Amino acid sequence: MRPQIKIILANFFFEYETPRQVLVRNKKVAVACRIIQMGVLAYIIGWVFMYEKGYHAIDTAIGSVFTKMKGLSFTNISGKVRIWDAADFVFPEQGASSFVVMTNFIATVGQKQDKCPELQDGKNTCKTDADCDEGKYKRHMTGRCISNTSTCEIYSWCPVEDDRQIPDPPILLTSENYTLFIKNSITFRQFNVVRSNLVESVNQSYINTCLYHPKTDPLCPIFRLGDIIKFSGFDFSEIARVGGAIGLLIDWDCNLDLNIKYCIPKYEFYGLYGTGKNDKQEKPSLGYNFRYAKYYVENEVEKRTLMKVFGVRIDIIVNGRAGKFDIIPTLTAIGSGVGIFGVATVVCDLLLLYFVPKRDFYKNMKFKHTENPEEKPSLPQSESEKDLPTE
Amino acid sequence: MRPQIKIILANFFFEYETPRQVLVRNKKVAVACRIIQMGVLAYIIGWVFMYEKGYHAIDTAIGSVFTKMKGLSFTNISGKVRIWDAADFVFPEQGASSFVVMTNFIATVGQKQDKCPELQDGKNTCKTDADCDEGKYKRHMTGRCISNTSTCEIYSWCPVEDDRQIPDPPILLTSENYTLFIKNSITFRQFNVVRSNLVESVNQSYINTCLYHPKTDPLCPIFRLGDIIKFSGFDFSEIARVGGAIGLLIDWDCNLDLNIKYCIPKYEFYGLYGTGKNDKQEKPSLGYNFRYAKYYVENEVEKRTLMKVFGVRIDIIVNGRAGKFDIIPTLTAIGSGVGIFGVATVVCDLLLLYFVPKRDFYKNMKFKHTENPEEKPSLPQSESEKDLPTE
Amino acid sequence: MRPQIKIILANFFFEYETPRQVLVRNKKVAVACRIIQMGVLAYIIGWVFMYEKGYHAIDTAIGSVFTKMKGLSFTNISGKVRIWDAADFVFPEQGASSFVVMTNFIATVGQKQDKCPELQDGKNTCKTDADCDEGKYKRHMTGRCISNTSTCEIYSWCPVEDDRQIPDPPILLTSENYTLFIKNSITFRQFNVVRSNLVESVNQSYINTCLYHPKTDPLCPIFRLGDIIKFSGFDFSEIARVGGAIGLLIDWDCNLDLNIKYCIPKYEFYGLYGTGKNDKQEKPSLGYNFRYAKYYVENEVEKRTLMKVFGVRIDIIVNGRAGKFDIIPTLTAIGSGVGIFGVATVVCDLLLLYFVPKRDFYKNMKFKHTENPEEKPSLPQSESEKDLPTE
Repeated sequence: MRPQIKIILANFFFEYETPRQVLVRNKKVAVACRIIQMGVLAYIIGWVFMYEKGYHAIDTAIGSVFTKMKGLSFTNISGKVRIWDAADFVFPEQGASSFVVMTNFIATVGQKQDKCPELQDGKNTCKTDADCDEGKYKRHMTGRCISNTSTCEIYSWCPVEDDRQIPDPPILLTSENYTLFIKNSITFRQFNVVRSNLVESVNQSYINTCLYHPKTDPLCPIFRLGDIIKFSGFDFSEIARVGGAIGLLIDWDCNLDLNIKYCIPKYEFYGLYGTGKNDKQEKPSLGYNFRYAKYYVENEVEKRTLMKVFGVRIDIIVNGRAGKFDIIPTLTAIGSGVGIFGVATVVCDLLLLYFVPKRDFYKNMKFKHTENPEEKPSLPQSESEKDLPTE
Repeated sequence: MRPQIKIILANFFFEYETPRQVLVRNKKVAVACRIIQMGVLAYIIGWVFMYEKGYHAIDTAIGSVFTKMKGLSFTNISGKVRIWDAADFVFPEQGASSFVVMTNFIATVGQKQDKCPELQDGKNTCKTDADCDEGKYKRHMTGRCISNTSTCEIYSWCPVEDDRQIPDPPILLTSENYTLFIKNSITFRQFNVVRSNLVESVNQSYINTCLYHPKTDPLCPIFRLGDIIKFSGFDFSEIARVGGAIGLLIDWDCNLDLNIKYCIPKYEFYGLYGTGKNDKQEKPSLGYNFRYAKYYVENEVEKRTLMKVFGVRIDIIVNGRAGKFDIIPTLTAIGSGVGIFGVATVVCDLLLLYFVPKRDFYKNMKFKHTENPEEKPSLPQSESEKDLPTE
Repeated sequence: MRPQIKIILANFFFEYETPRQVLVRNKKVAVACRIIQMGVLAYIIGWVFMYEKGYHAIDTAIGSVFTKMKGLSFTNISGKVRIWDAADFVFPEQGASSFVVMTNFIATVGQKQDKCPELQDGKNTCKTDADCDEGKYKRHMTGRCISNTSTCEIYSWCPVEDDRQIPDPPILLTSENYTLFIKNSITFRQFNVVRSNLVESVNQSYINTCLYHPKTDPLCPIFRLGDIIKFSGFDFSEIARVGGAIGLLIDWDCNLDLNIKYCIPKYEFYGLYGTGKNDKQEKPSLGYNFRYAKYYVENEVEKRTLMKVFGVRIDIIVNGRAGKFDIIPTLTAIGSGVGIFGVATVVCDLLLLYFVPKRDFYKNMKFKHTENPEEKPSLPQSESEKDLPTE
C-alpha cells in the first residue's frame, strides 16, 4: 500500500487540474459576452469596491453625549420682574442627551391638598349635589355642587390648574438666543478608536467665539436654540408657544483608512413625532408639554407650585459608522464577484447554444457525450467512444 | 508589434472561452446530482430570496420616544385625604423613554440634619458608649449609646427612615388604571424615511377613545398600566408593592418595497432584570425602589421629605429594521449562490469518480493527462498524447 | 412534440454535465497551485470559519440598565456638621443608566429674585451709571453702578453665585468609597434569549459581599466609585474637584452554540469627552458641572438654593453581540469561499499559460479553437476540426 499512497500524493502535488475550454470564434456572441463580462467587472470594481467600499469592515459607534444650555430670560409679568437662568428652564438639569428647554408655561402657585370646585369646561356643569356622585370616574368628588362655579367639588391640589389658555406670546420669548453646547464622545470598539466632536480644528479659542452654521461653522459645537428650531423646519414663535420635539442627529461616517482627522461629525436637525401622512416624509407635529411640581412647606402645610411646561424637547441622537480595510470583506466581495462572473459565462453559453444559427456545431465542440456503459454492455468502450460526434 | 496587438485585441473581442464539458449519462449519479442542484436552487430562491429577502439592503432605525402618564390616585391615610397626580408619581417628569411610576412609598417627613439614634435592626444593639466608636465604617457616630433604643447615636438626616416594613397593600393601588401615551418617531437614514407610531389609521379621534389591546387595538398608542404589567408576566398587586422593571419594546420590521403604510409598529412587553436561571428564559425579578428627597426650608432650617419610592420602571426600547430592494445584496446573494452551485458540482463529481463501478471510464472521459514534456524530452509531443488512454 | 419533451426531460434527469479538465503534470506550477489552494482553504476554514465564526448569524442586543448608588459622606464646613446620602448626591435619583455623582459643589443659599451688583471679574468695572446701559447683552441691568463693588446692578437671583473658586480639596472626598450596583438586562431578539448580568455564579450571598475587581471578581456587579475612576485613567482627587465623565461599558460577546452560562458580561471603563489630539487615542478631559436649584418658599417669597455641582458622570453603555450557528451565513461563506477557489485556479492558469517555458504545449492541451464556421463556409466541419493542433 505504501508506494501507492506515495503515488497518489505525488499526483496530488505534481499535477493540477485546469478546465479544458473551447475558444469560440463567433463575433456576435463573443462581443456580447465580453460586454457582459466587462459590465460585471465594472460593477465589482466600480460599485462594490470603489463606491460602496466593499473591502471595508464596518463598525457602528457607541457614543455618549453631554449638553449644556446657557442663556438668560427676563420676564415682566404684571410688573413683577423675574430672571430665568438655565437652572430654571432646563429639564433635567444634569446635561442629559435628551432634555427640554422651557419656552412657555402655566404656573399654579401655592397648591395644597384640599377640596375645591372643578374647572368649568362647558361639559361638567352641575345643578344639585345629586349631579356630583362621589367617586365618579377619574375625578374624586366630595359630592357637593358648588353654586358659585356650577361645578362639583373635588379632592385635589387646590386651586385647580387653569390651562385653558396657553400664554400667547410665549413667556420666555428670548429663549431664541439660548445656546446649547454639545460634547459627544464616540467609540468604535472593533477598531479601538475613540473620538470626540471637539476635533482637531475645534480648539478652546474657537469654542469661545464660534456659533454653529451649516456652511461657515459646520464643526462648532455651540448651537443657538433659534437656529436649531429653524433648521428643523419649525417656526420659532409657534413652537415656543405650544412646544415641540426636535431630533439633533450627530452623524459620523468615518473612513479609518484615511487619517483620523478626516473623521468628523455632521449635525442634522429634524422635527419629531409627526402624525401619519400619505407621503413618505412626515410633517413634524407641534405640541410638547409636561407637568412638573416644586414642593415646599409653608406654615407646616405641604404645598407645591405646579408648572405646566411647554418647551422644545431636543433629542440628541448619535449615529456612527466607521469602515476600515479588512481582508475578510475584501475576499468575500471578490469571491462573490467571481460567482457573478460565472453567471456571465452561463448567459454567454445560453446565447451560443440556443440563439446562434450554427448552435449544433458549438454544442458538439463544447459537449462530449458518454453513453452509460452499463446500459450498453455489449459495446466495447472504444465503440461507445466512436459514437460521439466530434472527437 | 502593432499588428500583433491588433490580433490579440481581435482575439479578445471576437473569441470567448467556454468550458468543455462531458455529458455523463449515468442515471444514478445524474439523478442524485439534479436533486442536489435543485435543492441548492430551492434554497437560494426559496430561503435566501423569498424568506430571508436576500435582495434587501437593511437599515436599522434611530428613534426617539416621548411618554405621558395620566391618572389620579386618591389615598386616605389615617383620615388624611390626599390626591396624587402625574406630577407627583412620575419620575422624571419630562416624558423620557425610561421612567418610573410610583405605586408605593415610605415617606419620612421633615428630616433635618441632626443627631439621632440608629434604627434597631437586631444586630446593632449597644450597651455603653464604648460600643459606639466614633467614625465606624459607613455610619457616622457621635460616640453615644442611647439607652431608649439601645442603639448608637449617629449624625444623620433625622428622624431616620424606617423602611423595615413595606406598606401592604401598596398605597397607590389605583395606579392600575393610569394610562401611558407613547409617541415614537423613527428614522431610517439610509432610505430617507421618517415614520411615527401614530400611523395612518391612528387619527386624533381614535386616540381620544382607544386603549391598547394586542388583538383588537394593536396600534393604539395608549396603554393601561395594569395591562402593561399583566402582558409582561407580573402580578399587579405584587409589583405595585415592591416595584419592578418592565421593557416595552416597540418593534418595527418594515419592508419598504411595499407601501409605507404597511410599516407599522408592534408593541411587546417583558419583565427585566431576572437573576440567572438554568433555563434560557430568565424569570423577571421583582423589586425596584429608589430614594428621592424634596427639600424645603422651615424656620430657616433646611429640611427634606425623604421618599423611598417603590414603582414600576418602564424602559421603552425601539428596535427598528427596514429592508428595501438593492442591487448589491441581490448580486452578492446570486454570486454566493453560484458558488454553492459549484459545490454541488464538486459533490456530483465525487460521486461519479469514486462511488460508481465504472468510475475509471468516467475519469478518462473527464480528465486528459499531460505528461510533463520537460521530464520526458525524448518523446515527441504526439507520443505523450498517445499515452493517454481515451483521446 | 410529446415524445420530444420526454427525451429532453430524460436527458435532463439522466445526464449531467461536468467540466472536462486537463491534468497538468508540471511540478513547479502544480506545487505553486496546490500551495495557493491550500492557503485559500486554510483561510476559509481557519479564519472565516474558526476565528471569525463565519457560520454564525449575528444579533445585537437591546438592553436596559438600572443603577443604585450607596454611600454616605460627612462634611464639617465651619463647624456645621452635615451628612450626605444617595438622595442628596445622585442626579437623577431614579436609577438611570446615565447619572452624575456629586463630589464637589458651590452652594448659593437663599437666592431670591432681586437686584444686586454683578460679581467683579476684572473686566466689568463701572464708574458711573452710564457704564451700565440697561439691557446690555445677556445680563439684564438696571442702569445703576454700585460704588461698593464697582459693578453694575442687575436683575437676578440674588445674591449672585460666586463660582470663581472651586473648593479644594473637594467637599465630598469620601465619595471615593461610594458603591454602585448595576443591574443590566439584555435581549437577543433574533435568538429569543434574555439575559441578565446577575449570571448563575452571582447569587444573592455573593452580591452581599463582593466588590468588582477585574481579576478576582470580574462578574461582581458592585463597583467602588474610586475604582471606576482609577480604571478609567483618572486621578480621584482631580476628578472629584472639577468633575469628569466616564463610560462604563458592559460588553457581551456571546456564542450561543455553547451553554448559555458562558454568555457573561465584561465591564470596561474609559474617560469621555477628550479633545482632539493627533494620536488615535484621545485623552479624557476633566471638567463636568451643572447647575441645579432647590426651590422653596420662605415668608411667602420664592427662594432657591442654587447648587453648582461638580461630579462624576457615569454613562453605562451596553454593547451586546451574540452569534449562533445558522445555515445561511454558513452557505454564504462556503459559496464565497468556492468563488475564491475559482480565483486560485485563474492564478494557476496564468502561471501555466504565460510563465512556463512550454506554455504553448499547455495552451494546446487546455484550449480547443473553433474557427467561426460562418466565416469559412467552404470548409466542412470535419476540416475545421482538423485545423486544431492537438485533437
